[in-house]
Amino acid sequence: MVEIIVAPNAGFCFGVKRAVKLAEESSSLTREGVRVYTLGPIIHNPQEVGRLSTKGVKPLNGEELREGDAIIIRSHGIPPDKERELRERGLRVIDATCPYVKAVHEAVCKLSEEGYFIVLVGEKNHPEVIGTLGYLKECGGKGIVVESLEDLKEAFKHERIGVVSQTTQSEKFFKEVVGELALWVKELKVINTICNATSVRQEDVYRIAPEVDVMVIIGGKNSGNTRRLYTISKSLNPNSYHIETAEELDPSWFEGVKKVGITAGASTPDWIIEQVRVKIEEICKELSCCS
Amino acid sequence: MVEIIVAPNAGFCFGVKRAVKLAEESSSLTREGVRVYTLGPIIHNPQEVGRLSTKGVKPLNGEELREGDAIIIRSHGIPPDKERELRERGLRVIDATCPYVKAVHEAVCKLSEEGYFIVLVGEKNHPEVIGTLGYLKECGGKGIVVESLEDLKEAFKHERIGVVSQTTQSEKFFKEVVGELALWVKELKVINTICNATSVRQEDVYRIAPEVDVMVIIGGKNSGNTRRLYTISKSLNPNSYHIETAEELDPSWFEGVKKVGITAGASTPDWIIEQVRVKIEEICKELSCCS
Repeated sequence: MVEIIVAPNAGFCFGVKRAVKLAEESSSLTREGVRVYTLGPIIHNPQEVGRLSTKGVKPLNGEELREGDAIIIRSHGIPPDKERELRERGLRVIDATCPYVKAVHEAVCKLSEEGYFIVLVGEKNHPEVIGTLGYLKECGGKGIVVESLEDLKEAFKHERIGVVSQTTQSEKFFKEVVGELALWVKELKVINTICNATSVRQEDVYRIAPEVDVMVIIGGKNSGNTRRLYTISKSLNPNSYHIETAEELDPSWFEGVKKVGITAGASTPDWIIEQVRVKIEEICKELSCCS
Repeated sequence: MVEIIVAPNAGFCFGVKRAVKLAEESSSLTREGVRVYTLGPIIHNPQEVGRLSTKGVKPLNGEELREGDAIIIRSHGIPPDKERELRERGLRVIDATCPYVKAVHEAVCKLSEEGYFIVLVGEKNHPEVIGTLGYLKECGGKGIVVESLEDLKEAFKHERIGVVSQTTQSEKFFKEVVGELALWVKELKVINTICNATSVRQEDVYRIAPEVDVMVIIGGKNSGNTRRLYTISKSLNPNSYHIETAEELDPSWFEGVKKVGITAGASTPDWIIEQVRVKIEEICKELSCCS
């Protein structure tokens, strides 16, 4: 048999995988007559949202919620007062907030309690940031969102600053903000809450590509993070291929092959990865490539 | 009378001024027959060191110290065990360690007690850094000196890092180090111990130059920090002049002038500033420029 290694961090990040799994599990509620909604699309992938819709789990889209309805909080999280409001309305709240996002909620409150003014590096209108600001308010803290270095002016008025980041923030900008603050404020405490999904995905490729005969990278041809995975892989293993779906797999790639590695960019759902894995197995069986 | 405003942060920084003053005061001990030495040249200005030597305060230069001798610790500071050793030998220790350097000693110990591994941004062989490392060891802390980004490797092994800086460190490099660390470690606490002598000297010019009729900047023509003071001044007041000594003052600059500002770069001793101030007073008296 051919050995197929799927990179542990292929495709969706941990938090998104978890949210999709919770949504999937919640679909069983629909068989009990419960209406199940997600507060906004659970992921930025229409096919995946469509797949869940066929199972009865749909993004809330103007429908009037009723007592007993189930509502799924996305991996981004929401402010605590909004969550309370949902519960007070008698809804079944299924909290799919990413644990890494929960860690940001905890970090802002910890830093506030230690007397720091909070700088949250992130996008002002991002749902995750709005949720985190809600937690900051809840624990009596004060702070600002920093989207550009311009926004830092307000922070310079404070002597002790605590910095956290939106989980998906660019490392480059985070670094700039922290460096700038370090020069201007008396005391700075930084809890790096950037999720390392992108870097661990790359580390998988560094580890797996040299060990396998063929490396297959799944993801949009126009996806920057996928192309980067492919570039890394190709530099380590000339038999690296970048595909979008299982249909693109070419049997000739797998002649005489014993070990295949698979990874995928951030926008690739697990089921597409699984289709690719199964298809490779089939191809190898037909080729009798398995020794 | 002409009004002459000498910038409060002109010339030597606070710590160096204070050390020179302590050395000057110690010269009175020589009249009681006490030998007075400084542990190394008290400042990096041979004329000033020469001036103090004529008053009997000399850099220790191989002489065997005897009980009762006075020894001046420079603004850089020394490790605490070295200071104890001096005291145990029966020497009169005059501690001219800059209070801002003492603040670094306190900061590394505070951060160590809070459980942080210390990153001291600075030059490994600089006396100030050697002194600070001594204090870190004394309080049971652990840490490294970071002179280049290469040195950070060792720090990445630790989850909680406390960062401080040699007081005269470049802000640019400090910023880089802090930014880099923020990405790699779990928790970062930064106490910015860079002395702001350079920036406050510039702030003086921003404040004084627009208020006076003539602004005089004293300092080496090849001194970067002095030239920067001159550039700032010229942009705010066209009657700005850059001189090295009082001899360069041109009486024509002061015709009809009522208010003169003076500042000086970091390498200019107070007595040169004073000579300039007195000379301007004399010129104005002769010109009867004083209304």
